[in-house]
Amino acid sequence: MKYLLRICYDGSAYAGFQFQTNAETVQGKLTEAARKLFGIPCDITGCSRTDAGVHAAGFAATVSPRAADGVLKVAPERVPAGMNFYLPEDIAVLSAERVPDAFHARYSVVSKTYEYRIVNSEVRNPLLRGRAYMPGRRLSEEAVRRMHWAAQSLVGTHDFRAYMSAGSSVTDTVRTVLAASVASEGGCIVFRISADGFLYNMVRILAGTLYAVGCGRIAPEAVSGITASGNRKNAGETLPPEGLTLVDVAYPSTQY
Amino acid sequence: MKYLLRICYDGSAYAGFQFQTNAETVQGKLTEAARKLFGIPCDITGCSRTDAGVHAAGFAATVSPRAADGVLKVAPERVPAGMNFYLPEDIAVLSAERVPDAFHARYSVVSKTYEYRIVNSEVRNPLLRGRAYMPGRRLSEEAVRRMHWAAQSLVGTHDFRAYMSAGSSVTDTVRTVLAASVASEGGCIVFRISADGFLYNMVRILAGTLYAVGCGRIAPEAVSGITASGNRKNAGETLPPEGLTLVDVAYPSTQY
Repeated sequence: MKYLLRICYDGSAYAGFQFQTNAETVQGKLTEAARKLFGIPCDITGCSRTDAGVHAAGFAATVSPRAADGVLKVAPERVPAGMNFYLPEDIAVLSAERVPDAFHARYSVVSKTYEYRIVNSEVRNPLLRGRAYMPGRRLSEEAVRRMHWAAQSLVGTHDFRAYMSAGSSVTDTVRTVLAASVASEGGCIVFRISADGFLYNMVRILAGTLYAVGCGRIAPEAVSGITASGNRKNAGETLPPEGLTLVDVAYPSTQY
Repeated sequence: MKYLLRICYDGSAYAGFQFQTNAETVQGKLTEAARKLFGIPCDITGCSRTDAGVHAAGFAATVSPRAADGVLKVAPERVPAGMNFYLPEDIAVLSAERVPDAFHARYSVVSKTYEYRIVNSEVRNPLLRGRAYMPGRRLSEEAVRRMHWAAQSLVGTHDFRAYMSAGSSVTDTVRTVLAASVASEGGCIVFRISADGFLYNMVRILAGTLYAVGCGRIAPEAVSGITASGNRKNAGETLPPEGLTLVDVAYPSTQY
């Protein structure tokens, strides 16, 4: 057995989730806190590798204490407070449960949901600093509706290689988008997308493509053609990391 | 004539709005930016003195450049971008308009609206760090409704001295509360209050009193008696500054 944790973090101070030898990472902080709580080395596996500056409201990770007998000595309901005692204030464990060894934080994922947030104003918003992209431009409600309309062409099973950054070793670039929406919320344009998986920088490139639709640089009806072209050059720019938040990760409810 | 600015700021890094000789303040930053934009010394008057760590989404302040001829040389629509160029990222001027000399940022106020935000969870929320109070406790929806019910007794014209911190020189402690509410929003308990004016620490003490109602330490029907007692000792504790945001300031629409 191991623990499945739900985690919230502000990614501003970290070089992403994944452990690195010369930089502060969320995985590094979790590994350290788990070592202190359980008193033995622990293996941490995350549901995905978020980039530097990307946030998470509902990240998922497993913790496997390297105990010889494989017994989980701390009751799951005591793990959040225990971990949070040793974690910095910009990371928090929200909940913990027991899962079988066959459960894998990454491979068992059914779907993930991301939000990309853009401040829809000529002026920056100090209360969203580091939490949203601030292009310093205001789009109309009509433009936001065009973005939402264009996002609908992403839903379904498609080859999304047009929205993948170079440098990824992934060869199977087909993913299934379950839902996509763009809406105005509290002075922001919020792009929400759920899929069974995402390619490298896919949400940030999709956000850049939809934002180009809002700005009138790409026609809404052109997005399906960009997807079909499979050519990264046809898509919009990769928007900056601070606008991105992993909001939820779903696992099969009956498998464990 | 002078300029009336609407301002947003993250108060975390400041010793409050009001100028101080040995500390960073929002007024200090505005004075510096206005000096650079207008090329001459400027007088800045704020709508209120927010405490250290308190935020503002819609603060109001006037800028009077000390020009011999009293002419405002910069068009109001160019003032936000001009000021924002010289301001730090945690302060932003949202808009500017011309107002007559008789207009006073503080004395002309008709009403102000504040929000106090409490994370309603046993676990801290890293994405609201410095923006909300995190008592590490979860109240039920029923408790939040009790808080809302208790808040209704504040509406109207009352002597609010029971909710004023010691050290204030104010002698007239009668204020009119126009609206008060408590609601659950996105994992937070949000207390909103509009009044023609507020006493020193009044919103934070009212938030502490209503939170004590939510926690069952004060009966909802006891709040009107606490108000009537005029005794600070009967009210709840002063909750920390980071939960407080000045959201709006209203001026008479026809006076200028």
